[in-house]
Amino acid sequence: MNYNVIVDVTLRKGIADPEGSTIERALPALGFTGVSNVHAGKSFRFDVEASDESAALEKATALAERLLSNPVIEDANARLAEEA
Amino acid sequence: MNYNVIVDVTLRKGIADPEGSTIERALPALGFTGVSNVHAGKSFRFDVEASDESAALEKATALAERLLSNPVIEDANARLAEEA
Repeated sequence: MNYNVIVDVTLRKGIADPEGSTIERALPALGFTGVSNVHAGKSFRFDVEASDESAALEKATALAERLLSNPVIEDANARLAEEA
Repeated sequence: MNYNVIVDVTLRKGIADPEGSTIERALPALGFTGVSNVHAGKSFRFDVEASDESAALEKATALAERLLSNPVIEDANARLAEEA
Protein backbone atom coordinates (compact mmCIF):
# COMPACT_ATOMS: atom_id res chain seq x y z
CA MET A 1 0.00 0.00 0.00
CA ASN A 2 1.09 3.57 -0.65
CA TYR A 3 1.32 6.06 2.20
CA ASN A 4 1.75 9.79 1.66
CA VAL A 5 4.45 10.99 4.03
CA ILE A 6 5.65 14.49 4.90
CA VAL A 7 9.15 15.03 6.25
CA ASP A 8 9.90 18.33 8.00
CA VAL A 9 13.56 19.27 8.25
CA THR A 10 14.36 22.01 10.77
CA LEU A 11 17.60 23.43 12.11
CA ARG A 12 18.62 22.11 15.51
CA LYS A 13 18.34 24.44 18.49
CA GLY A 14 21.34 26.70 18.77
CA ILE A 15 22.24 26.51 15.09
CA ALA A 16 22.25 29.94 13.45
CA ASP A 17 19.25 30.51 11.17
CA PRO A 18 20.24 33.39 8.87
CA GLU A 19 17.17 32.96 6.63
CA GLY A 20 14.81 33.23 9.59
CA SER A 21 16.66 36.24 11.02
CA THR A 22 16.58 38.03 7.67
CA ILE A 23 12.83 37.47 7.32
CA GLU A 24 12.28 38.73 10.86
CA ARG A 25 14.28 41.90 10.16
CA ALA A 26 12.37 42.55 6.93
CA LEU A 27 8.90 42.32 8.50
CA PRO A 28 8.55 45.81 10.08
CA ALA A 29 9.43 47.48 6.75
CA LEU A 30 6.50 45.59 5.16
CA GLY A 31 4.12 46.65 7.91
CA PHE A 32 4.01 43.36 9.83
CA THR A 33 4.38 43.76 13.58
CA GLY A 34 4.05 41.26 16.42
CA VAL A 35 5.80 38.45 14.55
CA SER A 36 8.76 36.82 16.29
CA ASN A 37 10.86 33.65 16.46
CA VAL A 38 10.94 33.10 12.71
CA HIS A 39 12.51 29.77 11.75
CA ALA A 40 13.04 28.57 8.19
CA GLY A 41 13.04 24.92 7.26
CA LYS A 42 12.45 22.51 4.43
CA SER A 43 9.68 20.04 3.80
CA PHE A 44 9.46 17.01 1.55
CA ARG A 45 6.36 15.10 0.55
CA PHE A 46 6.42 11.67 -1.07
CA ASP A 47 4.62 8.35 -1.42
CA VAL A 48 6.09 5.32 0.32
CA GLU A 49 5.13 1.75 -0.50
CA ALA A 50 4.90 -0.20 2.75
CA SER A 51 2.82 -2.88 4.44
CA ASP A 52 1.52 -0.61 7.22
CA GLU A 53 1.74 2.91 8.63
CA SER A 54 4.61 2.26 11.02
CA ALA A 55 6.70 0.58 8.31
CA ALA A 56 6.08 3.58 6.05
CA LEU A 57 7.15 6.01 8.76
CA GLU A 58 10.24 3.96 9.55
CA LYS A 59 11.29 3.94 5.90
CA ALA A 60 10.62 7.69 5.60
CA THR A 61 12.66 8.43 8.72
CA ALA A 62 15.62 6.40 7.44
CA LEU A 63 15.41 8.19 4.09
CA ALA A 64 15.15 11.58 5.81
CA GLU A 65 18.23 11.01 7.93
CA ARG A 66 20.25 9.53 5.09
CA LEU A 67 19.40 11.83 2.19
CA LEU A 68 17.12 14.73 3.10
CA SER A 69 18.83 16.23 6.13
CA ASN A 70 22.23 16.86 7.62
CA PRO A 71 21.94 15.22 11.07
CA VAL A 72 24.78 17.34 12.42
CA ILE A 73 22.78 20.55 12.20
CA GLU A 74 19.22 19.47 11.33
CA ASP A 75 16.36 17.51 12.84
CA ALA A 76 14.12 15.46 10.55
CA ASN A 77 10.59 14.55 11.50
CA ALA A 78 8.40 12.22 9.42
CA ARG A 79 4.61 12.13 9.67
CA LEU A 80 1.74 10.77 7.62
CA ALA A 81 -0.19 13.31 5.58
CA GLU A 82 -3.71 13.71 6.97
CA GLU A 83 -5.56 13.68 3.68
CA ALA A 84 -5.38 10.56 1.52
CA MET B 1 -1.83 36.41 22.75
CA ASN B 2 0.91 34.61 20.84
CA TYR B 3 0.08 31.85 18.37
CA ASN B 4 2.69 29.53 16.90
CA VAL B 5 2.05 29.29 13.17
CA ILE B 6 3.56 27.04 10.50
CA VAL B 7 3.53 28.11 6.86
CA ASP B 8 4.14 25.44 4.22
CA VAL B 9 5.23 26.69 0.83
CA THR B 10 4.93 24.18 -2.00
CA LEU B 11 5.32 24.45 -5.75
CA ARG B 12 2.07 24.74 -7.68
CA LYS B 13 0.95 21.77 -9.71
CA GLY B 14 2.63 21.64 -13.10
CA ILE B 15 5.64 23.68 -12.02
CA ALA B 16 8.90 21.75 -12.53
CA ASP B 17 10.39 20.49 -9.26
CA PRO B 18 14.06 19.76 -10.03
CA GLU B 19 14.95 19.20 -6.37
CA GLY B 20 12.24 16.58 -5.97
CA SER B 21 13.19 14.85 -9.23
CA THR B 22 16.84 14.72 -8.25
CA ILE B 23 16.02 13.17 -4.88
CA GLU B 24 13.79 10.61 -6.57
CA ARG B 25 16.54 9.65 -9.01
CA ALA B 26 19.09 9.29 -6.19
CA LEU B 27 16.98 6.92 -4.10
CA PRO B 28 17.60 3.57 -5.83
CA ALA B 29 21.39 4.07 -5.58
CA LEU B 30 20.98 4.41 -1.80
CA GLY B 31 18.86 1.30 -1.58
CA PHE B 32 15.46 2.92 -1.18
CA THR B 33 12.77 1.45 -3.39
CA GLY B 34 9.04 2.04 -3.55
CA VAL B 35 9.31 5.80 -3.03
CA SER B 36 7.63 8.02 -5.60
CA ASN B 37 6.14 11.47 -6.20
CA VAL B 38 8.85 13.32 -4.30
CA HIS B 39 8.08 17.01 -3.85
CA ALA B 40 10.36 19.53 -2.18
CA GLY B 41 9.07 22.59 -0.38
CA LYS B 42 9.86 25.10 2.33
CA SER B 43 8.40 25.60 5.76
CA PHE B 44 8.45 28.55 8.12
CA ARG B 45 7.52 28.61 11.77
CA PHE B 46 6.92 31.78 13.76
CA ASP B 47 4.95 33.36 16.59
CA VAL B 48 2.17 35.78 15.72
CA GLU B 49 0.64 38.18 18.20
CA ALA B 50 -3.12 38.30 17.59
CA SER B 51 -6.41 38.48 19.45
CA ASP B 52 -7.65 35.05 18.33
CA GLU B 53 -6.76 32.05 16.17
CA SER B 54 -8.43 33.26 12.99
CA ALA B 55 -6.75 36.67 13.23
CA ALA B 56 -3.40 34.94 13.68
CA LEU B 57 -3.99 32.74 10.62
CA GLU B 58 -5.13 35.71 8.55
CA LYS B 59 -1.98 37.65 9.44
CA ALA B 60 0.22 34.61 8.73
CA THR B 61 -1.45 34.05 5.35
CA ALA B 62 -0.92 37.69 4.34
CA LEU B 63 2.72 37.48 5.41
CA ALA B 64 3.21 34.19 3.56
CA GLU B 65 1.81 35.58 0.31
CA ARG B 66 3.70 38.86 0.59
CA LEU B 67 7.12 37.73 1.78
CA LEU B 68 7.54 33.96 2.10
CA SER B 69 6.33 32.70 -1.25
CA ASN B 70 6.21 33.57 -4.91
CA PRO B 71 2.46 33.36 -5.69
CA VAL B 72 3.18 32.89 -9.40
CA ILE B 73 4.73 29.46 -8.87
CA GLU B 74 4.06 28.59 -5.22
CA ASP B 75 1.15 27.88 -2.91
CA ALA B 76 1.38 28.99 0.71
CA ASN B 77 -0.66 27.33 3.43
CA ALA B 78 -0.75 28.60 7.02
CA ARG B 79 -1.81 26.45 9.98
CA LEU B 80 -1.56 26.61 13.74
CA ALA B 81 1.11 24.40 15.32
CA GLU B 82 -0.52 21.62 17.34
CA GLU B 83 1.72 21.84 20.38
CA ALA B 84 1.70 25.08 22.41
